[in-house]
Amino acid sequence: MQIKIFSCGGTIDKVYFDANSDFSVGEPQVKTVFADANVAFEFQIESLMQKDSLEMTVQDRQLLRDRIVMDDASQILVTHGTDTMTMTAEFLLGIPNKVIVLTGSMTPARFRVTDAVFNIGCAVGALQSKPAGVYITMNGRVFMAGNVRKNRERHCFEEIVASE
Amino acid sequence: MQIKIFSCGGTIDKVYFDANSDFSVGEPQVKTVFADANVAFEFQIESLMQKDSLEMTVQDRQLLRDRIVMDDASQILVTHGTDTMTMTAEFLLGIPNKVIVLTGSMTPARFRVTDAVFNIGCAVGALQSKPAGVYITMNGRVFMAGNVRKNRERHCFEEIVASE
Amino acid sequence: MQIKIFSCGGTIDKVYFDANSDFSVGEPQVKTVFADANVAFEFQIESLMQKDSLEMTVQDRQLLRDRIVMDDASQILVTHGTDTMTMTAEFLLGIPNKVIVLTGSMTPARFRVTDAVFNIGCAVGALQSKPAGVYITMNGRVFMAGNVRKNRERHCFEEIVASE
Amino acid sequence: MQIKIFSCGGTIDKVYFDANSDFSVGEPQVKTVFADANVAFEFQIESLMQKDSLEMTVQDRQLLRDRIVMDDASQILVTHGTDTMTMTAEFLLGIPNKVIVLTGSMTPARFRVTDAVFNIGCAVGALQSKPAGVYITMNGRVFMAGNVRKNRERHCFEEIVASE
Repeated sequence: MQIKIFSCGGTIDKVYFDANSDFSVGEPQVKTVFADANVAFEFQIESLMQKDSLEMTVQDRQLLRDRIVMDDASQILVTHGTDTMTMTAEFLLGIPNKVIVLTGSMTPARFRVTDAVFNIGCAVGALQSKPAGVYITMNGRVFMAGNVRKNRERHCFEEIVASE
Repeated sequence: MQIKIFSCGGTIDKVYFDANSDFSVGEPQVKTVFADANVAFEFQIESLMQKDSLEMTVQDRQLLRDRIVMDDASQILVTHGTDTMTMTAEFLLGIPNKVIVLTGSMTPARFRVTDAVFNIGCAVGALQSKPAGVYITMNGRVFMAGNVRKNRERHCFEEIVASE
Repeated sequence: MQIKIFSCGGTIDKVYFDANSDFSVGEPQVKTVFADANVAFEFQIESLMQKDSLEMTVQDRQLLRDRIVMDDASQILVTHGTDTMTMTAEFLLGIPNKVIVLTGSMTPARFRVTDAVFNIGCAVGALQSKPAGVYITMNGRVFMAGNVRKNRERHCFEEIVASE
Repeated sequence: MQIKIFSCGGTIDKVYFDANSDFSVGEPQVKTVFADANVAFEFQIESLMQKDSLEMTVQDRQLLRDRIVMDDASQILVTHGTDTMTMTAEFLLGIPNKVIVLTGSMTPARFRVTDAVFNIGCAVGALQSKPAGVYITMNGRVFMAGNVRKNRERHCFEEIVASE
């Protein structure tokens, strides 16, 4: 079992820089999360971009898609900002023979209280269990790409109900 | 989606009591983990027993099995000590129409660095993704009950290789 | 023994708001720090302002000084942003019969790894031990107001050496 | 400014060993606390013993006293279990020309919520501010050796009131 992780930035990787009293996207936090959890599978982490997800362009999404398609691993974890995570998930639809799970967090992984560790764990659990396809794990749920949205008022992800 | 959690004690729930300078099994930590992760599904937590898993008896395992069978929920999460988690998992084999995932941790959930949050996340991800059956999620892996052991020297769970 | 705390904002109180993917100054974190440490003295916390310290004006400093002078407590703790902490400390010089200690942090108190808890502890230790005067506790040091500067390159506070 | 730290074990240094599902006294945690707080003074940490303080003997206390007397540093921090911290503090009375502060914690330093970091900060603040003598910093208070006891029911340290 081998997992390839592409990190795209977002809240999950935000660090605080005293120099400018501001937060910016830093190194992929998934590495620390895996180390603390003492994971027993092989993995490779690649930092594709360090962006707020609102700044992601079509070119960025195409780059991510190309890299996933070309990668040998069949289990792909993407860490991503929450604001456009659903857009990127839909952009990845149709890649054959791979389980692709996107996750991120509402609060930076470096916080004492954060949803990042749980979300990454949830993604890793889904990655080994789901058939090929594109999924989002947020708020302890495993959503199908194309059937999920971020509810900004309630600060959580939810299914798109059919009748809407 | 509704998840029923049965907590059985173990390292994951260990707290420190200054009165006797010792650690004992305390309240189910899964509640705090779910709150911090802001999970968006319904769940019910029931503390079945607060034991080191080395002290679990056949009666304890029968009680757990009976309660799972009788429960309305089809997604069952069991938090459990690591030393006999594989025995309990095998004891639960054969329960129809339910996805049952056991998890726990090597380090108490209350530690600043712990595998508990990640493991519970991983279990929740598997719970929604796997077909009916009994599984263990530890060290970021989703194992089939009956095909996994705790490697005490390496402090991690691993598959039982067929040829052994 | 009673301590009065005036919080003025700064990095120590920064929280993350998912709504605008940004950090802002939030509630005084000193309350949580005191609760976690199970402090056994009486205290009163008052949030005077929630600002980055670069935005503090002469009026803000005058307000702080006036409130300290009028307060009954003789032990005053001020939590403050680090960028202009030394300026505010000097502004408070000359207040009689009170021990005044300013502190803050380079990393928000809500981070898993932070200097905030240690710094507040250090300030509380100095507050009970020093003669009347104005002090800054940062990086584990207790500095006299007027004899300390923030070294932005080294990310720490240091004494102003006489010969300079 | 240089601080010498003698660690004697106690709750503050407790770690969890999965091998025997038990907590034991481990490496001095003060090192990690100082690193996280980015302290800007010189220090030397020496692990004298790794004991529950209930197991400390007269010989242990004599060893600690001898090592403090012989040490060049005039600022001495002792981390110690809480149950007999007051006894050790009294044993150290009379050492001339040194500020000696004992501290520890009710909850291990490795917990996510702990009093350890605050207590060490408080000790470091007192160490630089007090005249020569022996002190205990617990629960945010700076006590004189000989005038303090652990109140086991209330889980905190308190002054011995004169009339008792």
